[in-house]
Amino acid sequence: MKTPIPEYLVEVLDGTQDGGEVASYIPELARVNPDRLAAALCMSDGRLYTAGDADTRFTIQSISKPFVYALAVQELGLDEVLKRIGVEPSGETFNSASLDPHTQRPDNPMVNIGAIATHALVRPDATVAERVEHIRAGLSAFAGRELELDLNVCSSELETAFRNLSLAYLVRSVGGFEQDPRGIVEGYTHQCSLLVDARDLAVMAMTLANAGINPVAKERVVDEAVAQQVLSVMTTCGMYDATGDWMTQVGIPAKSGVGGGIIGALPGQVGAAVFSPRLDDVGNSVRGVQAFERFSKDMGMHLLKAPPLSRDVVRRAGVRESNHGPVHAIELQGPLRFSSTERVLRRLQDIPEDTHGVALDLTRVSSVDDVSRRMLMEGLRRLRLEGHPVYFVDPKSAIPDRDLGDGSYPTEAESLDELGLTGLA
Amino acid sequence: MKTPIPEYLVEVLDGTQDGGEVASYIPELARVNPDRLAAALCMSDGRLYTAGDADTRFTIQSISKPFVYALAVQELGLDEVLKRIGVEPSGETFNSASLDPHTQRPDNPMVNIGAIATHALVRPDATVAERVEHIRAGLSAFAGRELELDLNVCSSELETAFRNLSLAYLVRSVGGFEQDPRGIVEGYTHQCSLLVDARDLAVMAMTLANAGINPVAKERVVDEAVAQQVLSVMTTCGMYDATGDWMTQVGIPAKSGVGGGIIGALPGQVGAAVFSPRLDDVGNSVRGVQAFERFSKDMGMHLLKAPPLSRDVVRRAGVRESNHGPVHAIELQGPLRFSSTERVLRRLQDIPEDTHGVALDLTRVSSVDDVSRRMLMEGLRRLRLEGHPVYFVDPKSAIPDRDLGDGSYPTEAESLDELGLTGLA
Amino acid sequence: MKTPIPEYLVEVLDGTQDGGEVASYIPELARVNPDRLAAALCMSDGRLYTAGDADTRFTIQSISKPFVYALAVQELGLDEVLKRIGVEPSGETFNSASLDPHTQRPDNPMVNIGAIATHALVRPDATVAERVEHIRAGLSAFAGRELELDLNVCSSELETAFRNLSLAYLVRSVGGFEQDPRGIVEGYTHQCSLLVDARDLAVMAMTLANAGINPVAKERVVDEAVAQQVLSVMTTCGMYDATGDWMTQVGIPAKSGVGGGIIGALPGQVGAAVFSPRLDDVGNSVRGVQAFERFSKDMGMHLLKAPPLSRDVVRRAGVRESNHGPVHAIELQGPLRFSSTERVLRRLQDIPEDTHGVALDLTRVSSVDDVSRRMLMEGLRRLRLEGHPVYFVDPKSAIPDRDLGDGSYPTEAESLDELGLTGLA
Amino acid sequence: MKTPIPEYLVEVLDGTQDGGEVASYIPELARVNPDRLAAALCMSDGRLYTAGDADTRFTIQSISKPFVYALAVQELGLDEVLKRIGVEPSGETFNSASLDPHTQRPDNPMVNIGAIATHALVRPDATVAERVEHIRAGLSAFAGRELELDLNVCSSELETAFRNLSLAYLVRSVGGFEQDPRGIVEGYTHQCSLLVDARDLAVMAMTLANAGINPVAKERVVDEAVAQQVLSVMTTCGMYDATGDWMTQVGIPAKSGVGGGIIGALPGQVGAAVFSPRLDDVGNSVRGVQAFERFSKDMGMHLLKAPPLSRDVVRRAGVRESNHGPVHAIELQGPLRFSSTERVLRRLQDIPEDTHGVALDLTRVSSVDDVSRRMLMEGLRRLRLEGHPVYFVDPKSAIPDRDLGDGSYPTEAESLDELGLTGLA
Repeated sequence: MKTPIPEYLVEVLDGTQDGGEVASYIPELARVNPDRLAAALCMSDGRLYTAGDADTRFTIQSISKPFVYALAVQELGLDEVLKRIGVEPSGETFNSASLDPHTQRPDNPMVNIGAIATHALVRPDATVAERVEHIRAGLSAFAGRELELDLNVCSSELETAFRNLSLAYLVRSVGGFEQDPRGIVEGYTHQCSLLVDARDLAVMAMTLANAGINPVAKERVVDEAVAQQVLSVMTTCGMYDATGDWMTQVGIPAKSGVGGGIIGALPGQVGAAVFSPRLDDVGNSVRGVQAFERFSKDMGMHLLKAPPLSRDVVRRAGVRESNHGPVHAIELQGPLRFSSTERVLRRLQDIPEDTHGVALDLTRVSSVDDVSRRMLMEGLRRLRLEGHPVYFVDPKSAIPDRDLGDGSYPTEAESLDELGLTGLA
Repeated sequence: MKTPIPEYLVEVLDGTQDGGEVASYIPELARVNPDRLAAALCMSDGRLYTAGDADTRFTIQSISKPFVYALAVQELGLDEVLKRIGVEPSGETFNSASLDPHTQRPDNPMVNIGAIATHALVRPDATVAERVEHIRAGLSAFAGRELELDLNVCSSELETAFRNLSLAYLVRSVGGFEQDPRGIVEGYTHQCSLLVDARDLAVMAMTLANAGINPVAKERVVDEAVAQQVLSVMTTCGMYDATGDWMTQVGIPAKSGVGGGIIGALPGQVGAAVFSPRLDDVGNSVRGVQAFERFSKDMGMHLLKAPPLSRDVVRRAGVRESNHGPVHAIELQGPLRFSSTERVLRRLQDIPEDTHGVALDLTRVSSVDDVSRRMLMEGLRRLRLEGHPVYFVDPKSAIPDRDLGDGSYPTEAESLDELGLTGLA
Repeated sequence: MKTPIPEYLVEVLDGTQDGGEVASYIPELARVNPDRLAAALCMSDGRLYTAGDADTRFTIQSISKPFVYALAVQELGLDEVLKRIGVEPSGETFNSASLDPHTQRPDNPMVNIGAIATHALVRPDATVAERVEHIRAGLSAFAGRELELDLNVCSSELETAFRNLSLAYLVRSVGGFEQDPRGIVEGYTHQCSLLVDARDLAVMAMTLANAGINPVAKERVVDEAVAQQVLSVMTTCGMYDATGDWMTQVGIPAKSGVGGGIIGALPGQVGAAVFSPRLDDVGNSVRGVQAFERFSKDMGMHLLKAPPLSRDVVRRAGVRESNHGPVHAIELQGPLRFSSTERVLRRLQDIPEDTHGVALDLTRVSSVDDVSRRMLMEGLRRLRLEGHPVYFVDPKSAIPDRDLGDGSYPTEAESLDELGLTGLA
Repeated sequence: MKTPIPEYLVEVLDGTQDGGEVASYIPELARVNPDRLAAALCMSDGRLYTAGDADTRFTIQSISKPFVYALAVQELGLDEVLKRIGVEPSGETFNSASLDPHTQRPDNPMVNIGAIATHALVRPDATVAERVEHIRAGLSAFAGRELELDLNVCSSELETAFRNLSLAYLVRSVGGFEQDPRGIVEGYTHQCSLLVDARDLAVMAMTLANAGINPVAKERVVDEAVAQQVLSVMTTCGMYDATGDWMTQVGIPAKSGVGGGIIGALPGQVGAAVFSPRLDDVGNSVRGVQAFERFSKDMGMHLLKAPPLSRDVVRRAGVRESNHGPVHAIELQGPLRFSSTERVLRRLQDIPEDTHGVALDLTRVSSVDDVSRRMLMEGLRRLRLEGHPVYFVDPKSAIPDRDLGDGSYPTEAESLDELGLTGLA
């Protein structure tokens, strides 16, 4: 059998209608073949699916913004970065010369003025060449491949970088950075001219969606909190003036670039990229937007979509007789998060006082987050305080650390049967 | 054992520091006891946890906005509503007199001008009293309780509703609605004066997070797509000027009101509400914001947080000998969504050509979303086309409709054993 | 002989090219005959010249703004009015919903929001009908004729006055006035529907240009300082977004209305009006603008035009022998203002010490402003202090009050000859 | 006698109250002695009056803007300059980064972004040094003295010229000029660092007020139309955000600079300058504003002030008997402009048909503008056409060109008596 996913990607691309115009304000960009079309998906274990011209390289342009923001937050810490650059949607166009009137900060790192200020924060004391190399290396870590610069596009863009120079001098004038604005714009333009293909972008997006770990290389690029911060900013500011439309219709944290690329990153699930050079009025790839709308609809990937009803977290529960008296045995299944663990606690709360002990079977639990572990341990601690021995069946170590919070531990076993429990109520 | 969740809520409330001032622009609002403090959580099955003054009633104010928007979208359809009201963050204050210069629409339904326009869309041909009653009934369905109006606050607010009247006339002047603006503001003010407590708000929030079904009454209030639309708009526009800060720090779709309430709704998981009347500069409850920051951090509820690594969706796989030859048996576990099902497809793809058949065991699967069902059925269809019989063990009907897409069905069984498979590779 | 001025007016009108569209947002306005065309000039003594449809009546619309502002300043005093309404150009369109962010005042009385606020200041405690009647009477005094309302246009405009109601409620919400905004807009709409013809408007404009005195009726309507204030505001804010263009190209304080009228007022010289209903994009009469450009160019009426070089203020000067010794006799001519009087003082300063006395002959002086009178008297006082007797020939009382500032007076005479001076140096 | 004007200037300066702060954003500016205080008036014949530290030199800063604008309009023509820079008040602060959204032009040449764009228009193909020297020479012609640069202030300002560089790059990005923005800002900063004293500024202002002719050197610096254009723009845009206040209260076209200077120019009358370094919130000299308010009030110099009533332009009129029959003799006086000449035409119109001829005596006319000359000649031409001989007494050539428009001329005489007229009606 051949997996249908690549065919699905081809079908999605075929279903898009082209329109709009290739970005022309950078002369070299206007020379791109406007009919190139590609899509790529990267799964959390690094598996890649591609369709179309997935190895056609193009300049990353604004899609570099979230990744350089990630580097800045990783290196300086969030607090330092927030002193310089806000996180609010601006309601302005991407190249607007606006600073927050109260804080004098750029509104967010996804508009040009904020991205330029972000660029300046990375390795502030380095030379321009060093900073560019540092960023190139950083974005290469996100991509899992050594990225290269397109020096033609970079030169072409530098020739007409007047608007960006205006923005850089504006930030400089309010002390947003200390370096020479010309070097910052030179470096920023290099950053924008990194060559990527749809495959690279899908891996980069999945690295953000994967809590900062490159899913192919299995190496951490930024901390989990940094990846979450970047995805949050992409959620409210990623698609320029159309962010609200995007979040209602597509619902995937995303970023687009005038080179024609769009990335989307759904936490824990998928990194996606589409490439098609013609842009709509807002500056987003026309076919890229359509492809993502299809992804969101077909794959149920909208961030605000209510998940399907889970099977009850309690698979089975019953009283078994043990040598010491009746033991309440509860078999759990599926992922344990706050909302499912809360139900487990309710079951523990309802256990009759004359029960001797309580046994939890986690064999079929698929994942346990931190709050759930703490809630469960607290529940067991309380039961033990009330005199009930607690038993724990967790052969796959869904919860490796079973400290009940008071230094005591539940009695462990390989299976309920091993606990010597017999009979089912 | 007593569940620790109520104690946790008390601890969260105790940990907040008050500050700011009670809203005073509506005289009657200034008379509220500023020291009231409450929190409530509603789970997806309707279970409620509360702390503090959870039965103190206060006026809903702006928290009515997402719910009336939900009614409008439900009744008119999203397309009609989008013609009148946008979904973009405005970058302006909540009572700004701004319309989109191109479309003449209010930017979004969460700022006053958009909420007034939304109010007018509900039952457009009704009288003011009828529309108010209709909205009262609609929000009561969200709350699962017959809500009442605070006519004192309403009268007090109507006396100084000049700003809202200005906004209403502005919308009227561009044809945003056809009714008398005075009636619209009168109705809107009534809408804002609905009396709720923290408990009500938690249920209302959970109804949005629960795909539109009231979790207590188990009755659908709005369609799933409507609930998703409302949560999306709350994500980008819910917390006024501080939406970007909120989405990075808290990450829960939310809405606040000058009455001192804040709601948060995390799809599929929890509806939360906090009430404390003193407001910060932006108009959000000071203690409410702190409580939500704590919720987000403690409960891991940030929308952009990567979920913990799931246990592999394939619990076990192996070749069993059957009467007809070797059968590949795959036991699945946990939730099936695009990203996990994609892995199942990979396993199916890797099955050796000389395998006779394939058996899938869904006994331990906790949920299956639509795309996963279709992906799985397509994979099985292809295997059958290649000549492999396919077997299906799904005793709990995780996938009730097993049509392979071509009118054929897999062979079903209660268990792998029942299929007559023996031996494990 | 027939004066060529009426022919000139006809020639100016004939030379204009029509274009644009009649205002259509008020249905009744759209019914006006768009080909009507009129011009009128009013001289400082009330003499009128007209051309075209000078007795066609139309609604005054925004041209009422400066006159009602004049009434408000006259009645409340400038300081009170400035507390409520600014005098700065707004850089916004005429119906913009903007208040100064610091003062919460409308920017100026020439944009709608400021004009509505101004309307409310006139007779604040009166009923709507009383205020309308008061304004009607006030503008009638400017026109020198009892103006009437066009109730059809007024009703038509009231039906679609939503934008103005929005502005009125906005001003009301910040305390800009205390009355019911609906009554204010009702009254304002009545104010705008006063029927005038080009002749009326020329007289009204000349009343402002004539220091507040109606030149036909010879009756004061407002104080000189009030008229100056109104003309000043017209200078910087009168022509909406095109005020800068207007002041450079035309240079006459002006105001236009959507009814198709434009007035211009040049202090001390002329009041002008043109009427042609088709409007340009900014809302100014297309032919009206052209006619005023022609007026400005032909008549040299630009406010910033340097006046032609005057003949020297000192017509003749010389030493004459008198009984007591040589007397310096100076004959003045033309208007005495600061710049010409300064030259007289220089001549007085240069008088040799051995001169016995000084005689000033004002027979040919055309006017003397206040500062010139004081300068001249101060010069004479100083001469007398130095021991020089001073003589004054002023048979036409160019300076009626000849107190030298210290209670003394110059010796007066009908002519230099009468002073007994003989011979010319 | 000593003229009281210098004492008056001292009295005005003594009457001002200091306040505010010296501009500190340019370090070198902060070192100025904040207590320096000077005033100067320049009359239309170049006579200067000064008070206080009138020979203390300071950097011209923004006061250079109108003069460089004058140079640009003189050199390129108004149309070319208007393509690049508008003339509308901006409603923004002086250093706002705003361009007109439709035309992409800076709003006007008095805000920084417009002044920078203006600087670039002067000698566009020259080197930076050449352009600076050209501007230095041009402003020296306005001042009638070779001005020098303060290179310390210039260097100090260049170090922190980030904001201006931002503005320059913004204009460059929309094609407002073609040169390197760094050179333009370098040149602009040099332009701003020209050293002037109050005396210089008064002469420069008077040159604008004197139709472009330096009143001391008696040499034309720019055309009359250019001077009028500059004064017009100063009228609507000269005092930043406070232009409306200034035009109502002071009413003199003006420009201020952060160096502490303010100039005012009243066409045909006076150029004024005040210097006091401490600035108010808007950036205008605190004492300078007060001094100008006093000037305006004391000297009656408000642009919108109605002039005092002139003595009638017709001094005497009557019928004299001549050899050929009765001749209507009219003696005129004072200045002839449109409004006074219109009255003369009325008198000519009223002349009885049986009058033989008409004689005009212009001996006492102080000035005649172009429109008046043409009106008068047209009136005489018509009289002649009707058969009336016309006589002209104009011994001082108030109207040198007496062509009646049809190639004929009036009969000239030295006096009415010489015409052989006898007797007075």
